[in-house]
Amino acid sequence: MSSSDRKLHLNAFLTGTGHHEASWRYPGTSPERGLDIRHYQKLAQTAERGLLDSVFLADGYAGRSAGKLEPFTQLSALAAVTEHIGLIATVGTTYNEPFHVARKFASLDHISGGRAGWNIVTTGTESTAFNFGLDVHPEHGLRYEYAEEFVEVTKQLWDSWEDDALVFDKEAGIQLDQGKVHEIHFKGNRYSVKGPLNIPRPPQGYPVLVQAGSSESGKELAAKTAEVIFTAQQTLEEAQAFYADVKSRLAKYGRTPDQLHILPGLSPIIADTEAEAREIEEELNALINTESAVKRLSERVGIDLSGYPLDGPIPYHLLPGIDAINGRKGRYQLVVDLALRENLSILQLTRRLAGARGHITFTGTPLQLADLIEDWFRHGGADGFNLMPQLYPSGLDAFVDKVVPELQNRGLFRTAYEGTTLRENLGLARPAAVRPAPALEAGA
Amino acid sequence: MSSSDRKLHLNAFLTGTGHHEASWRYPGTSPERGLDIRHYQKLAQTAERGLLDSVFLADGYAGRSAGKLEPFTQLSALAAVTEHIGLIATVGTTYNEPFHVARKFASLDHISGGRAGWNIVTTGTESTAFNFGLDVHPEHGLRYEYAEEFVEVTKQLWDSWEDDALVFDKEAGIQLDQGKVHEIHFKGNRYSVKGPLNIPRPPQGYPVLVQAGSSESGKELAAKTAEVIFTAQQTLEEAQAFYADVKSRLAKYGRTPDQLHILPGLSPIIADTEAEAREIEEELNALINTESAVKRLSERVGIDLSGYPLDGPIPYHLLPGIDAINGRKGRYQLVVDLALRENLSILQLTRRLAGARGHITFTGTPLQLADLIEDWFRHGGADGFNLMPQLYPSGLDAFVDKVVPELQNRGLFRTAYEGTTLRENLGLARPAAVRPAPALEAGA
Ligand SMILES: Cc1cc2nc3c(=O)[nH]c(=O)nc-3n(C[C@H](O)[C@H](O)[C@H](O)COP(=O)(O)O)c2cc1C
Ligand SMILES: Cc1cc2nc3c(=O)[nH]c(=O)nc-3n(C[C@H](O)[C@H](O)[C@H](O)COP(=O)(O)O)c2cc1C
Repeated sequence: MSSSDRKLHLNAFLTGTGHHEASWRYPGTSPERGLDIRHYQKLAQTAERGLLDSVFLADGYAGRSAGKLEPFTQLSALAAVTEHIGLIATVGTTYNEPFHVARKFASLDHISGGRAGWNIVTTGTESTAFNFGLDVHPEHGLRYEYAEEFVEVTKQLWDSWEDDALVFDKEAGIQLDQGKVHEIHFKGNRYSVKGPLNIPRPPQGYPVLVQAGSSESGKELAAKTAEVIFTAQQTLEEAQAFYADVKSRLAKYGRTPDQLHILPGLSPIIADTEAEAREIEEELNALINTESAVKRLSERVGIDLSGYPLDGPIPYHLLPGIDAINGRKGRYQLVVDLALRENLSILQLTRRLAGARGHITFTGTPLQLADLIEDWFRHGGADGFNLMPQLYPSGLDAFVDKVVPELQNRGLFRTAYEGTTLRENLGLARPAAVRPAPALEAGA
Repeated sequence: MSSSDRKLHLNAFLTGTGHHEASWRYPGTSPERGLDIRHYQKLAQTAERGLLDSVFLADGYAGRSAGKLEPFTQLSALAAVTEHIGLIATVGTTYNEPFHVARKFASLDHISGGRAGWNIVTTGTESTAFNFGLDVHPEHGLRYEYAEEFVEVTKQLWDSWEDDALVFDKEAGIQLDQGKVHEIHFKGNRYSVKGPLNIPRPPQGYPVLVQAGSSESGKELAAKTAEVIFTAQQTLEEAQAFYADVKSRLAKYGRTPDQLHILPGLSPIIADTEAEAREIEEELNALINTESAVKRLSERVGIDLSGYPLDGPIPYHLLPGIDAINGRKGRYQLVVDLALRENLSILQLTRRLAGARGHITFTGTPLQLADLIEDWFRHGGADGFNLMPQLYPSGLDAFVDKVVPELQNRGLFRTAYEGTTLRENLGLARPAAVRPAPALEAGA
């Protein structure tokens, strides 16, 4: 594809009231609708009206969340009221079974007519272990080893049904060609799965595989298996370095740069004038609970900051260092780099992270936002963006009504969906089913 | 409630083309729509038009199923296009994690506005073990021990959020009352779960708890925890004995008979005349693949019947006996009893089981079916029925259009939904949240 044909890919990261940590307190938002499926159905329909590629849900298995539904059930209910938009669920590989995950994604893909995507994460929250009978959260490197094996099993399970296994020959009395449904006899270090999966191959072959870790292991897993990568980048320079780094890793897995889309997070506040946008930002920031924000920052950097002056720096000499971080290594590094580069006080740092926990924030007009998007897109920083409006639904409405038309005018964004599946809209090939080596099937 | 006010409860057990094993070959059915969510959405809407209490999906984690979606994703997509009908998912306790199951049900219950139900099963299919890294399927009694503990954990997880934990006080900056969200510190023989659940208490408190095992352990688990029981009964006398048996077990758990509804399966073929109904039955039976049917029967009774004459009896002296059955004990007993009582040949037995695998079948007119339903309902055989039409969608259409009005005329069935949740329509109380003993929270 010539570079002038290259189009942006845009995903909306859905939440209840928006990504700003005080969005739920902002006048007019409805935090009590965080469990109301109609709220999310409306957002998905808005995103589809704006021709976005997909909507996305984060997920975890611990903590106290006042307004979050479970992704498979939620996305299925969104599938029922939309036709084109992709539906990306986060599912962690550390505390799930490959058979269940492969099956649920296959089912969601069938239900949505080929619109499912899987954000593969290793789950950073250490206390998750206690909800699954473990005393310790497996260590970072081990989690990525598990993740790699997990993805391998799920692919084999999706491939256990050849695409033409279903026959439904009423006359002959044959529902399926048994010779085209295969046991997989997977035996790895962690998983042992005989197969086949109990549902035919998904319309997309596999759901679109997304990866969201930015550590070394995360980038490597992405290069090996992912088709989309979500990442947090604070400046174009950082984004360019990340982009070049990840794309350069593809060749050794026999892949080409266009097989992996890099979508940094982008967390906007948009208004018709810059002054109005700034006003919203200030109102939002005034609603932050500083004590909780310092607590969250403490968790991020691995030291208790509550005793330190708010207008002073974080005590850099006490930081544990990236090797000691067993949660989210990528995010740890980003926060420390940001504080150092901009010489921020603890208070300033909490303010900078309030909008989107480390993703780049933006405050301004639709034209200014289109400029930023174009700049990153044209200059090797991004293949598109993971949109994280600081306020829902207003931020998404504004983006769809005012930024999308501008991007279309500039020839940067589609004016109609290219295909019917998420893969087709992302310009990604449908994977052929890989057959296990015949020797493995002997025992079947 | 006076006995004249007592109303039937009706559930529709959904499948692709119907419960008759040859339904997929019957002219006019669409087996290729088994993975098409719109097919099931239409069925759920028909059931809702008929004011049925609920629809239900069976489930398992092994085998080769040509046309079955996964229940959580499927029911969520049904929730999105219906308003009143209950949504009951089978989830097995042997190969799942309580945290994930509690959360998905809570999410489905929030999404549907309180319409979720859980058919608690222990999973009878032995080969399931191989899809989850085990060499052996846990033995029947052990599976029921696991099941009991599993249900206990999930209830505690649902109760980990008090009903009024959500506050959303924008002014004060308080989203939730942390003192009303509790760790559970569950430690049992199999599970250890700290909690709390990461989603607020479901609208119904718990999803409606359904049980579908008919062995001794199954009946005991039902008496202790279930609010609905699905069962296969071949005659009114058997049904009465089962009904009396199960209801008599409730008192020792401090429960009353109206807290558990007994719904035998009922698998009809209806037509305007008896002759027409018989014709459909014969057409269906002519489409049975006898070889596969004998194979399935062999699995049911635990001996290979392929060498025996089709017109002779099963070799009773070779039967393993109920203690040796590690799969579905209740169904084993039913099949053997049926063959003996009616002195059936192997071929006749496969025919008798073709309609609904052991549930009672019926062939006749809408009035005759209403008579049978009334008879069982009024004479201590049932609180309602689990409808298993031998053909979908035609069998459900006929039931809703012709049998439901007749039952309403007789004062046996509702003419409008009583409430908005499945519990309300079933006349079941919403459980209060049980608080763990304070001592347990000390370590929190
Ligand atoms: C946009 C975005 C969304 C993410 N969503 C989740 C999530 O829902 N659940 C999760 O466990 N990790 C999520 N992550 C990943 C974590 O932030 C973290 O990167 C990952 O757990 C391991 O990361 P590491 O490789 O950087 O250590 C997300 C990351 C990004 C950039
Ligand atoms: C209507 C009905 C539906 C059932 N659905 C399932 C199911 O989907 N999955 C399953 O493992 N068992 C299901 N069962 C239960 C099994 O038939 C069997 O009874 C159970 O696994 C253990 O039974 P036992 O207590 O009779 O040995 C169902 C039973 C009935 C009556």
